[in-house]
Amino acid sequence: MAEKDLKELLVHTLKDVYFAEHEILKALPEMEAAARHAPLQEAFAVHRQQTEGQIERLKQVFQVLGEKAEGVPCLAIQGILAEGREVMEEFAGGPALDAGLIAAAQAVEHYEIARYGALRSWAELAGLDEADDLLEQTLDEERATDELLTEIAEGMVNVESV
Amino acid sequence: MAEKDLKELLVHTLKDVYFAEHEILKALPEMEAAARHAPLQEAFAVHRQQTEGQIERLKQVFQVLGEKAEGVPCLAIQGILAEGREVMEEFAGGPALDAGLIAAAQAVEHYEIARYGALRSWAELAGLDEADDLLEQTLDEERATDELLTEIAEGMVNVESV
Repeated sequence: MAEKDLKELLVHTLKDVYFAEHEILKALPEMEAAARHAPLQEAFAVHRQQTEGQIERLKQVFQVLGEKAEGVPCLAIQGILAEGREVMEEFAGGPALDAGLIAAAQAVEHYEIARYGALRSWAELAGLDEADDLLEQTLDEERATDELLTEIAEGMVNVESV
Repeated sequence: MAEKDLKELLVHTLKDVYFAEHEILKALPEMEAAARHAPLQEAFAVHRQQTEGQIERLKQVFQVLGEKAEGVPCLAIQGILAEGREVMEEFAGGPALDAGLIAAAQAVEHYEIARYGALRSWAELAGLDEADDLLEQTLDEERATDELLTEIAEGMVNVESV
């Protein structure tokens, strides 16, 4: 087997996260429709728009690397989203639904934080400053979304769910 | 469909993470065996021991809640670990293998951080102080493991992989 280097790992992981972002883009309207509380609905709507911008940024990173923007199936995001849909069904109509939705969304955010964190460190190391900047912008958005979800959970949803 | 409340969501998620920890316990020796650098091998070995302790803590949390300790299949961790195994195979023997292993392990840690973060907030809200304390200990370990992996990546692996 040919030895594969860090550039190939970076491109492989970019394709993985490119696929993941498209899956998330499909899932967010379902989550928005399922959410009961307005601030959570709005957070999902805003993050949907952000996700579109994140996909555009990924296309720019592919371009910087001289690679074609394309996805490879990402088993991780498929599992995370399938689990989220399971919780949506199981807790549908119940008082804990929004808490479950927030937890599912935070699992998605943390997956992305891990992925963009790795991508950034590799881009930085490889001296790909433009790619590093683009990935950093998205990483910051994912972290902010995770924090916003925690605030929504603490401020509203859980109090009504117990 | 009966409305399910936060206690049920907490128990459901505990079962999910109980299953996940057992899957991680099986995966860590594979990752340790695949890793090329000693500090990474050691990190995986140490985290394997921690994972055993985390499973014991989860059993205590089930006890506090008056529930039987049992798992339910966790699609998310299955996907995350399957993706890690894919990277292990694809980059086997190559210079980027350890970087890929670290990224895979950080995806696992971030999944756990998201899960234990949600569990803690629900336990706290429900006034389950003992459960909250136990979950906090594990959450701190997961965060520390994630940070250690970042340090190993920055200090050693990536430099040799480019």
